Amino acid sequence: MGDGVQSGAGAVARGDAPGPEVPTRTYALTLSYDGTDYAGFQVQPNRRTVQGELERAIERITQETVRVKASGRTDAGVHAYGQVVSFRSAWRHAPEELLRALNAVLPADIVVRGLALRGPEFHARFSAAWRTYAYSVYQGEWRSPLLDRYAHRVSVALDLPAMRAAAGALVGEHDFAAFGRPTVGHSTVRRVRRAAWVAGGPGAEGGWLAPGVAGWWQFQIEANGFLRGMVRRMVGTLLEVGTGARGATAVEELLRAPERSEAGPPAPARGLCLWAVRYD
Amino acid sequence: MGDGVQSGAGAVARGDAPGPEVPTRTYALTLSYDGTDYAGFQVQPNRRTVQGELERAIERITQETVRVKASGRTDAGVHAYGQVVSFRSAWRHAPEELLRALNAVLPADIVVRGLALRGPEFHARFSAAWRTYAYSVYQGEWRSPLLDRYAHRVSVALDLPAMRAAAGALVGEHDFAAFGRPTVGHSTVRRVRRAAWVAGGPGAEGGWLAPGVAGWWQFQIEANGFLRGMVRRMVGTLLEVGTGARGATAVEELLRAPERSEAGPPAPARGLCLWAVRYD
Repeated sequence: MGDGVQSGAGAVARGDAPGPEVPTRTYALTLSYDGTDYAGFQVQPNRRTVQGELERAIERITQETVRVKASGRTDAGVHAYGQVVSFRSAWRHAPEELLRALNAVLPADIVVRGLALRGPEFHARFSAAWRTYAYSVYQGEWRSPLLDRYAHRVSVALDLPAMRAAAGALVGEHDFAAFGRPTVGHSTVRRVRRAAWVAGGPGAEGGWLAPGVAGWWQFQIEANGFLRGMVRRMVGTLLEVGTGARGATAVEELLRAPERSEAGPPAPARGLCLWAVRYD
Repeated sequence: MGDGVQSGAGAVARGDAPGPEVPTRTYALTLSYDGTDYAGFQVQPNRRTVQGELERAIERITQETVRVKASGRTDAGVHAYGQVVSFRSAWRHAPEELLRALNAVLPADIVVRGLALRGPEFHARFSAAWRTYAYSVYQGEWRSPLLDRYAHRVSVALDLPAMRAAAGALVGEHDFAAFGRPTVGHSTVRRVRRAAWVAGGPGAEGGWLAPGVAGWWQFQIEANGFLRGMVRRMVGTLLEVGTGARGATAVEELLRAPERSEAGPPAPARGLCLWAVRYD
């Protein structure tokens, strides 16, 4: 069965007993969502979750009960520009029709930006090679209602060169146990390909920064994988470097001897965004 | 009574009969708000309005019933970085205390960014010399949950040079009757000091634009005053120039002979933001 068509129990027609198998295909969706009003990606009873809304939309369109796999489960309040999820479906019409139909029924804070047919072995999480997260920070004396939904406010000036130098120490293959919740029996070693602070942001073009905002920066990090809470603890640590609460070598020390020191507190969820996932 | 202190009926102690006059001062607040969940600035019965929330906060802190004056009344769903409002109060403590106390009780989507004492003749609307509005637009095939709150999506490519040329025609003193709701007996002549399209926006720095977003632009316009709906109709018209639905001279024709042609439809409120108000 070429052309991505495969059989499997991935899709079960609603209300049917698991009878004769229906040929299914594997789909990969690229999702963007505003995580503010969600209890996270992963489905939970009686909570509004991205997975729950997406599976309900798929079920409504395809009449199949589907369980989607995500590249990673974003926490409550975390946003996504380029989350990727995969699932199998017996959808018989053109893929573009599925994309269009899903966007017609999904809530306004979730959108499917892309849909692709993949081979039967594709799995949004296990096939992912690189993931990029972005964390947005602004400096202002007062909270800013037009930035607060997607960025974390700091009230004091930050030492950006120190934060950049400390971020540079994250690049490479390291044991990130100091930054992420350890799972028994799983490795805490990850490879970081890029970690950088970029200046700019809303209103920064052409020299006009939003009134009342002294600066806006985004921490961008690409790695082959992330431990739970890893980016937010990295940002918490780097912000402590930026305010002078920690020395410039804090990150190196945390990587070298995680048992001897503690990372900074996790920065708030609202600033974090799953930017992109790359598949080789 | 120097130092900005003045007497007047601007502030009446709650529950008191209008008895002996209390010395009052004139305060100017600079406000930032997310207009999404408001029925506009102006107070209306049984609707959530910026003015209503602000007056309630002032009343709670000062124990005075106050009616604030705004530089301009933003419509439902329109945002502000730098709205200015004025009011009189018999507040006896330091102005900074009032600023801090207001921000402690205001809802999360309104913030007071600055507070200043002004002379008794100051009026947020009548004293304003220049007002700047910004309107944000992005191009994307699909809606983008992380941009939609503050920007208007267009699905097709825009001819930015044509839009810039057409915007340039707005600069100067003109009769803007074609772009704004006329009020009987009031002039529709306004002076535009600057009108420009600026590229960039969220995620545009360093070459990384938000995935799925082909472009982001902001229309910035500064004038000595605006007719109701004027900026949104200007943007609606300029977008029609950008898509080729109107010729490059559309704006000039609307300014020359407003009775002979019609402006474009008003662009949606969500993209509009009252950026700043200047007082000479």
